[in-house]
Amino acid sequence: MFTQAQIGALAQPTSSKIILFVLDGLGGLPKPETGKTELETARKPNFDKLAVKSICGLSEPVGAGITAGSAPGHTALFGYDPVAVNIGRGVLEAVGIDFPIEQDDVLARGNFCTVDKNGVITDRRAGRIATELNAELCKLLEMKIDDVQIITTPVKDHRFLICFRGPGLRDAVTDNDPQHENLMPTPVTAITAGAMKTANIANQFIERAKKILADKHPANMLLLRGFSRKPELLSMESIYKIKPAVVAAYPMYRGLARLVGMTNLPTGSTFADEIKTVKDHYNEFNFFFLHFKALDAAGEDGDFDRKVRFIEEVDKALPDLLSLKPDVLVVTGDHSTPAMLKGHSWHTVPTMIYGQYCRPDKCTGFSESGCLGGGLGIFPATQIMPLAMANALKLNKYGA
Amino acid sequence: MFTQAQIGALAQPTSSKIILFVLDGLGGLPKPETGKTELETARKPNFDKLAVKSICGLSEPVGAGITAGSAPGHTALFGYDPVAVNIGRGVLEAVGIDFPIEQDDVLARGNFCTVDKNGVITDRRAGRIATELNAELCKLLEMKIDDVQIITTPVKDHRFLICFRGPGLRDAVTDNDPQHENLMPTPVTAITAGAMKTANIANQFIERAKKILADKHPANMLLLRGFSRKPELLSMESIYKIKPAVVAAYPMYRGLARLVGMTNLPTGSTFADEIKTVKDHYNEFNFFFLHFKALDAAGEDGDFDRKVRFIEEVDKALPDLLSLKPDVLVVTGDHSTPAMLKGHSWHTVPTMIYGQYCRPDKCTGFSESGCLGGGLGIFPATQIMPLAMANALKLNKYGA
Repeated sequence: MFTQAQIGALAQPTSSKIILFVLDGLGGLPKPETGKTELETARKPNFDKLAVKSICGLSEPVGAGITAGSAPGHTALFGYDPVAVNIGRGVLEAVGIDFPIEQDDVLARGNFCTVDKNGVITDRRAGRIATELNAELCKLLEMKIDDVQIITTPVKDHRFLICFRGPGLRDAVTDNDPQHENLMPTPVTAITAGAMKTANIANQFIERAKKILADKHPANMLLLRGFSRKPELLSMESIYKIKPAVVAAYPMYRGLARLVGMTNLPTGSTFADEIKTVKDHYNEFNFFFLHFKALDAAGEDGDFDRKVRFIEEVDKALPDLLSLKPDVLVVTGDHSTPAMLKGHSWHTVPTMIYGQYCRPDKCTGFSESGCLGGGLGIFPATQIMPLAMANALKLNKYGA
Repeated sequence: MFTQAQIGALAQPTSSKIILFVLDGLGGLPKPETGKTELETARKPNFDKLAVKSICGLSEPVGAGITAGSAPGHTALFGYDPVAVNIGRGVLEAVGIDFPIEQDDVLARGNFCTVDKNGVITDRRAGRIATELNAELCKLLEMKIDDVQIITTPVKDHRFLICFRGPGLRDAVTDNDPQHENLMPTPVTAITAGAMKTANIANQFIERAKKILADKHPANMLLLRGFSRKPELLSMESIYKIKPAVVAAYPMYRGLARLVGMTNLPTGSTFADEIKTVKDHYNEFNFFFLHFKALDAAGEDGDFDRKVRFIEEVDKALPDLLSLKPDVLVVTGDHSTPAMLKGHSWHTVPTMIYGQYCRPDKCTGFSESGCLGGGLGIFPATQIMPLAMANALKLNKYGA
């Protein structure tokens, strides 16, 4: 198997342009009443027309039977091994709010929560308090313990980011979040000897925070999880010799893209806004990661019809994207999110690669069943980048 | 995944016969006017008839999106890992002209070239001088520097082989060929400490050659690339317990086959000649690697119609090959060479395996679209050897 580094060794800089269009949570499952998935139900003539001219297949984000989170799902789409690359929850939260991570920061995701008089968690989300209140509470929690600066940054509702900044910190510590209600928060514990200091500081912080928050019901306690440091990844620019940009209305995806060195292009919240952003910067970059979130959110809510409507909405805007005439357009998802399962799933993801040299197959529609039997077969999502690069004539021949 | 060594451990010698028929550059891309590839355009009733009785699929020479050179393309077909096995350009050139390589020889591919009065390259191929002139110049360049014998052997036109033979030589040195015109040749540089001597001798040779060639315009300089030594590979005979022979009109492919221990059967230049050679030696061997070059050459020239004609020509001769009644006949390519791309490409390669025990699928024609959905799926080319061996009943059961 070719590694990402070996593929990178074949990469050559060219002016050809690639758009990697990710419809978050694209794949689905049939509605029992109709036997048709969200994609099969949607009226999407533009997607279907494109599928006829594309090479299609079903991509596997991480592995057979594995339900991918957003981080590994995207890591794979960017061509990095989603199993070898580990992006912690804390780091994810940080990159999603443009928090300036320093090299040795230990980051964790925080939830304000409600505990009863015995310290038992009664609401892991503190009734989803307002973001404004969250911001006020975060201000109260900024402190220094020994030589460690603790920075708390509000995210949204009950969610915040906590950053431990100081010498000698490690991320090999457990959460204090038991992940369920009717339990007490657990102490943070070092998993390696080197992480003793971090655990100690974190526990001191939690003790002090408990006192500070005591009279702030419903946000009278906090839960921390996903202690992690920034992974050291080669940038996509250095590996693939491309100039990559991300257009994503949703912070986490911008953040993931920035971890691999993409330039963030600020954009609005609709798909039309996103396309306009790509257009406005089309001459400045030759790789665009375009992320559309709404399908996943509808799937997570179990709202089959809303997912269908969003597919149709994107379909209507597709010609506008195609009018840019990218050399290669990839349409895929980071994982499936069937409305029927109300969450991410392990199911393969409909994928098509369109370009002048793509050897079209017999697929006549863009859907789970339509992509089955396509020329890409069922294939690992990490192959999308080398295939896109090849189709854009950005990869030299291997061997004489 | 089973390694080649693990497959070899299951191999048993039998009298059954395998023909591995490689149509170089077999796969293609549709002509825009017709939407049909070279294979889909050709009238090839015999191939199609065979496809009905075979198990078909699309093989991937090296990996998704990777365009294979001839060496890795064939390495994979012979069952060796094309990424782990590295056959340098110099070695390739040597094996292609039957040069008797000794164990520690360092070989490089040479080009006579033209430089202007400032030493800048104006023609990397010296106007493709006649092979006769090339031979005369090579004679002038034979020399000994310190304890290193330097042997120059003409290949064709402006191409020659250079062999550095002497103690303590290594191949970890850079080319003096900058690969582009309007540049000066670069000094040969050692990449490892052990290769200092090689770099030193090579640079001395180049300096002397420059003086010798000074008045030989247009061949007034030379470029060396791909310094390499013979890879140490187990022979196919020892791994697979077969007696393998190669029938190839084109030198490089004979050379590749000899690197894995095949016996070369001298042959003529047409496909009919090649079939006759197989027939003449059919009782002496039980594995034949039969190589046909013309499709690749037509594809490289961008000549769609010529590629079609060669497919039709081979099709006509196919019954003659089948009359030998091999136990297993594999028809495949080492990579695709779409006329549309005028070169090797990353596209998967139509492949069929015919034999008494092959479990035919529903494929009704031998082409890119015909093989899609075949019983072999989309699969790595390294699996062709174990499949051929299995179909010839040459592999024992694995495990109790």
